This record gives sequence, structure tokens and C-alpha cells, in this order.
Amino acid sequence: MHILDIDDLSREEILKIIDKAFYFKEHRKEHEKFLKDKSFALIFEKPSTRTRISFDLAIYESGGHSIIMNQNEIHLGKKESIKDTARVISRYVDGIIARVNRHSDLEEMAKYSDVPVINALSNLSHPCQILADLMTIKEHKKSFEVKVAYLGDGNNVCNSLILGCSILGIDIYVATPKGYEPNSGIVLKAKKFAEENDSVVLITNDPKEVAKDADVIYTDVWLSMGDKKDLEEIKKIFPPYQVNSKLLELAKEDVIVMHCLPASRGMEITDDVIDGDRSVVYDQAENRLHAQKALLYHIYK
Amino acid sequence: MHILDIDDLSREEILKIIDKAFYFKEHRKEHEKFLKDKSFALIFEKPSTRTRISFDLAIYESGGHSIIMNQNEIHLGKKESIKDTARVISRYVDGIIARVNRHSDLEEMAKYSDVPVINALSNLSHPCQILADLMTIKEHKKSFEVKVAYLGDGNNVCNSLILGCSILGIDIYVATPKGYEPNSGIVLKAKKFAEENDSVVLITNDPKEVAKDADVIYTDVWLSMGDKKDLEEIKKIFPPYQVNSKLLELAKEDVIVMHCLPASRGMEITDDVIDGDRSVVYDQAENRLHAQKALLYHIYK
Amino acid sequence: MHILDIDDLSREEILKIIDKAFYFKEHRKEHEKFLKDKSFALIFEKPSTRTRISFDLAIYESGGHSIIMNQNEIHLGKKESIKDTARVISRYVDGIIARVNRHSDLEEMAKYSDVPVINALSNLSHPCQILADLMTIKEHKKSFEVKVAYLGDGNNVCNSLILGCSILGIDIYVATPKGYEPNSGIVLKAKKFAEENDSVVLITNDPKEVAKDADVIYTDVWLSMGDKKDLEEIKKIFPPYQVNSKLLELAKEDVIVMHCLPASRGMEITDDVIDGDRSVVYDQAENRLHAQKALLYHIYK
Repeated sequence: MHILDIDDLSREEILKIIDKAFYFKEHRKEHEKFLKDKSFALIFEKPSTRTRISFDLAIYESGGHSIIMNQNEIHLGKKESIKDTARVISRYVDGIIARVNRHSDLEEMAKYSDVPVINALSNLSHPCQILADLMTIKEHKKSFEVKVAYLGDGNNVCNSLILGCSILGIDIYVATPKGYEPNSGIVLKAKKFAEENDSVVLITNDPKEVAKDADVIYTDVWLSMGDKKDLEEIKKIFPPYQVNSKLLELAKEDVIVMHCLPASRGMEITDDVIDGDRSVVYDQAENRLHAQKALLYHIYK
Repeated sequence: MHILDIDDLSREEILKIIDKAFYFKEHRKEHEKFLKDKSFALIFEKPSTRTRISFDLAIYESGGHSIIMNQNEIHLGKKESIKDTARVISRYVDGIIARVNRHSDLEEMAKYSDVPVINALSNLSHPCQILADLMTIKEHKKSFEVKVAYLGDGNNVCNSLILGCSILGIDIYVATPKGYEPNSGIVLKAKKFAEENDSVVLITNDPKEVAKDADVIYTDVWLSMGDKKDLEEIKKIFPPYQVNSKLLELAKEDVIVMHCLPASRGMEITDDVIDGDRSVVYDQAENRLHAQKALLYHIYK
Repeated sequence: MHILDIDDLSREEILKIIDKAFYFKEHRKEHEKFLKDKSFALIFEKPSTRTRISFDLAIYESGGHSIIMNQNEIHLGKKESIKDTARVISRYVDGIIARVNRHSDLEEMAKYSDVPVINALSNLSHPCQILADLMTIKEHKKSFEVKVAYLGDGNNVCNSLILGCSILGIDIYVATPKGYEPNSGIVLKAKKFAEENDSVVLITNDPKEVAKDADVIYTDVWLSMGDKKDLEEIKKIFPPYQVNSKLLELAKEDVIVMHCLPASRGMEITDDVIDGDRSVVYDQAENRLHAQKALLYHIYK
């Protein structure tokens, strides 16, 4: 089974993974070795701090072994066809966890790999982040009956958040500047899930409508790694989507603030908000570890 | 004991290592921990996928620990003399496995190291590849009484293949363009082994003579990593040495096709051949793991 | 507890760590697993050979797990504030070991980290090196009642050496060219320790006064990694501080020569001296492993 986006998992599977993630969080130091004698190739076409450390640890604490390959060590589709790389690597290891510049490279890899391929961030989606995010919502709101508001750039994290929320029937409201909307194909998929679940998927350019009465406010950098956007343009059109104390006043009093990090403080989020008592961003970061461990458990146990 | 080229092993040792490699392949998941509490420095002056993963895994699965040092982490002979690097590193670890730009650097390292130094590819030779290749020939042809044909660039892989085959008494025929012949010193050594073994070492510029009735056809990229050759010149003079279906017609019907990878599909080998039923290139890649594990067993057990 | 410089440890603690380091050296292969289930982030803003390998091994041999992050994988204070990086990483691991360009970054990291931060070299200091150095002095001189002479650049190693010696009451004499003196704040701190211990801290520009009757002669590269100094200027003013056989004649007959490596042979030290029978530089390098293991034992056991 490959995990290229969050909809490679069903509602039931996601809920089961989140339950297991809480179990792992409570029993952090017990290290159930369900990956004993298993090895994983961790391929990073772009640098990574959280994903790298959290996957490495999830694997180590479960008894497995990671082989890290950075962008200067592997040149996907350049020195060698992705077909050959996937075939060869899947002869050696039990799973491939890859961060890639082009989602299609991940699909190509999955096509030729004999072992599971897990998306550790592509230009299109970031399913592992969203598993941790859903866990964090459950942790702090005790329920999925919430209104999630995403403000900022309609990027990979936004795409997978929309999809993940709608699979679980969480109301997801997204406000981006014109021209920075999330991927339309994913929104379409999400709307189908939302219809089944009788939940909301709303994509708009109005930050206030989105923030109003929100239980969760989520943002991400306006300029992602490797992004070709014009910084001056960004600074002109994104400020209305900044998560600051004024915006928070529109939300519910007990709103939680999420950010997948790294944050550009003073840009998409202000210091007082990210350091404030509504912020759950460090829990959210920590939960990457537990959620990914639970995902590996789901696949390999 | 250092392994700088394949002739650092005797015929008997090579055969023993191949036998053990088959044992490890059959018992892949049993993980005999013969390297328990042993550590290895894996130094890569050039990037590596297969060598890196296969050595890391061979060591891990045998209970040992790898410390990877890439070209941006270690500057052999620049920031520090190779003498000092070798002396210091051999104080810490039980073995040094190194991919270097200059074979003489490897020899210098071996001179000052108190622990075994293993060549993981130099400009001159690639003994670990050849152990896997000989294992693959045995695996698919059930015998070493075969004619091996190498076509293309007379590079490091070609050099070690000639030497390895002649040590085992395998007939080795090599066809390269004029000016791209294998290392003459190695060919001379190989001819002495061949004489003892009553086998053939033939170096020519004629691809047809080499491919004719071959049991094994082997090729490698025309332009190696870091190579200074002119790509246009290469494209002009190398095509007669391409391994394609037409060339395969000259060989025996049950010929196997080998390539140490990465492959430049459409250059030295065509898609239909590398993806075809005569190709054993992915087995060959996998066998790197088993052969290197067996080599480590030979040195450390 | 954080170890940002050697004076984060008391005299008693340093002596205890050195004792334990000798124990670990004698029992190298016994691998007491006192770091079982503990993980460490090893952050290197500058490349490292000795520090990298010795910490990785110290952790591995003690049952722990290292996650290496090189300069191209983590951009301290660039992509993300150091505050956020420290908070996040300390959610994942049990300790942070960092080599940084700016000592203030390390202080910032320590401020926000919930787990110990250990300095693996900053522009200001190098406490882990000095633990190994003090151990090496004890190993070869059997006593701390010695005169230590440092000649060359008043760099990070020099700073921590002055501090470490004065904490233990070792007489430390330093000769540098004018304008290359050690950090004045650290010298001031050292002089206070020396006063308590009735020992000498002398900073001068006269190499002969320093070398005279020395039990230990220590030097380091004149041009450190990333240093912006003018090589031509260096070559003009540093030669009187070179550690060569002539200089050694001024010292005691049984003087030992130390260098934290890498060495620029022919610059700050001559071949005959570093390769000679007075040199203990490879023991000193090896002792990094034992001293750091003992430091980790002190912090985590």
C-alpha cells in the first residue's frame, strides 16, 4: 500500500491511526519494536527538519533502520530513471519515504516500487502532516465537530488539510488571495467526501468569513521552499490573511492556532500569537512523531 | 587486510565469498550479527545510491554501525593530509569503506590505516561490484564456464571485471572504441591469471567479435560520474557498442544482460533490453548487498 | 544542564569526567548502554570529521541514537527562528549537540531547549576538545602539575584551553601574534580561577617565553574553518609561533606535543614534530571519543 495523499486512507483507517498515535504518545519511552529488522530509505529532494527527525525517530523507536538520502546524494530522474531507482531501492529496503519536488515523480516511484512508498511532502500534498494535525485537533478540542479555518497560501499542506478534514467530516474553511487557491482537483474530491459526511468545504478569498467562530485557525508560510513566487508581490497581497491577535478576535474564544512550521514570524503569523496561549504549534510538531509511528504501525504491523 | 582491488582476494577466497553471499541471500531476514559492536566509516567523495545503501544495510543487518561521510563533510587530502585522516579514523572505527576520485588516495589511506580499507569505487577499480557480478553470473548461468562480453567504456568497472573473470578462469572479451581501452597494467595482470587458468582475456575494438556467442553481455555508462569526456564525441563513436536487441542476436540465445547501474537508457543500453527478459540488472543490484555482506564476513568473522 | 563552555563544569566534575573517560578507554569494547532509548540531534553548521565521528560513536556505543543534521539540511536562524528550532527539536530528542558559527546562536538554543545543549565547537569555544586534551595530559604526564604552552592563533580552542587549565590549576602560557590574542572576557574568567588555584595564566606575544621549560606544547591551525583572515598576512606574522624541532629544544626534554587536528603540516607544525615521538596528537584525537562518552555519562546517567 502506498500513501501518496491522505485519501489513500479511509475514514476508519485515519481514526484508527490517530487512536494508535495517542497510545504511542502516552507510551513514548516503551518503544514497541514492530519494525524490527526492517529498513527504510528516506529520500529528501528538499531539506527537512521536522519530517526528517520525526520519521527517523519513529522508525528507530520502533526497532527499524533508516537510510537518509539527501538531495546531493540522489538525483531523482536525472542520473537514473525513477523506474530504475524505485526498482533497485525496493530490492534493498522495506519502505520508501520520499520528499519530492514533483508529485508525479512520487507516482512514478510508487508504480515501480515493490515496497510501500510514503509521501513526506510533495508540491501537491503532505498527508503525514495532516495525520499529525488531525491528532492535534482531537488532542486539544476533544472532538472533530469543529470549524477549521485555513488562511494564507493554498499550498500542499492546505490541499491535504482540506482533503483530510472532509474525509472525517470536519468543516474546513479556506481563505487565500485570488490566484493562490488550493488545487481544484483536490477540492473537488474533498467536496464529494464532505457531501457524504454532511460537512462544509468552503474556498474563498475572504479571511474574515473564514476566521469567524473558528475552533481552529491554521496557517503556513506564504512562500514555500523552492517557491518561485515574487516576495514583493507576496508582501503586498497576503497581509490580510495574517494570523494575528486582531484576526483571533473573530474566532471562538477557545480557538487553537496551528502552523506546520517552519514559521516566518511577522509574516503569516505574529510573535504574540505563535508564542501565545492559544498556540498549539509545538504539540503539533511533536505529534508528527506519534502520528507517523502509528502510520507505520498501520502499514507494517 | 585491505581490499583495494579484486586481486587482493585469491580465487579460493572469491569462491568462498560468493558461496556465503548465496547463503546470506537465502537467509536475508535472519541477520546473523557477526559485526556486533563494530563500526565503519563510509566515505563518499562521489555520490552513491547502490553502494551507499547496500553497504549501510550489509553492516546494519550484520549488527554493525555505519558512519556516513559525504563529499561535503570530508575533504580528503585538502583540509587534512590523508595520512592524518587515516590514522585518526582508524582509531575510532573497525573499517573504512571509501569511494574516492583518485585510486592513489585509497592506497595512501590503506598505508596509514590500522583497520581494513575497502574500495567502494575508485577511478581505477570497483572490486565490490565485481563480487556481486560474479555471484550474479553463477546465479543465472549456474557455472563459471561462460564467455563474458563487456562492451563500451574501458572504465573502473571494466578493469575489475577483467581482473575478476581472469582470476576465476572465466573467458572475458572486451570491446571499446579506440582510445577507451581498459587500464593496460590491469590487463597485463589479468592475462597472467588467464594463462594460469587457461582462459581468454581479449581486448579489441570490434563489438561483434565480442558479442558473438556470449553467455553474458555487460555494459556500463559511457560517461562516468565526474568524467571529463566530450559528450558529443561520445555520441559519435560509442553507438556501435550499444547493447540493443540487434547486438543480442549475435549472442547465445540464453544470454543474460548485465549493467552495474545507473543506466543511461537509450545510450549504452536500450529500454527493450534493460526491461526485457534477458536482463538480470536488478538481481545484480540486489546482489551487491549479499556479496558485500559476505566480504565483510570474510574479513571480520 | 547545558555545556556551552568548559566552565559549565566545576573542577570536581571535570576530574570525575576524566576518570570515567579513562575507564571507558580501558573498556572500549564493553559498551555500557547508559543511553538506551535516548536520541540526539547532532547539528553541524560547519563540517566536522573528528567531532562528528567521535560523538556518533560515543552515543552508539552507549546504546543511543544520533540524528545528524548538516549545514545543507538545517539553516539555523534562517528558514526558522532558533527559538522554534530549539523548541521543536527538544520535543523529539534527549539532547542537542551543535557546532555553530556564532556562539550566541548556541546560547539562544540553550535558552529555548528543554533538553541539554552541548557545544561541539563555536567561534568562541570548544569545551569537548578540552576535556579530551586534559585527559591526554593526564594520560601522558600522569599529573596536572605541568606547564602547558599554547602557540599560534588565540582561537576557540585556545580560549577553552586557557579556561580548562585554569579551572584545574594548570599553568597555562599562551603566545600569539599581536592582534590574535584569545578572548579577553574568557582570559579574565580564567585569571580568577587561576588566582583561586594559585596557578599561572600568561598571555604574551613571545613564543620563546612560552615554550621555555614547557611540559606540553599545543598548537592549532592558524587559519580556522570559515576564517576570513588574509593568508598572506598569516604567512608573514605567524612563523615565529610554528611548532618545530628548534622550538621544542626550549621545552623540557619529555615535552609532549598536542594539536587538536586537522593540521596544516608545514604551517603551524612541522612534519618531523607531528610524526615524531613527542607527538601525542592521535591519542588526543582518540580521547575525544572517551571524554565525550564520559561527558554524556555525567549528564545522562
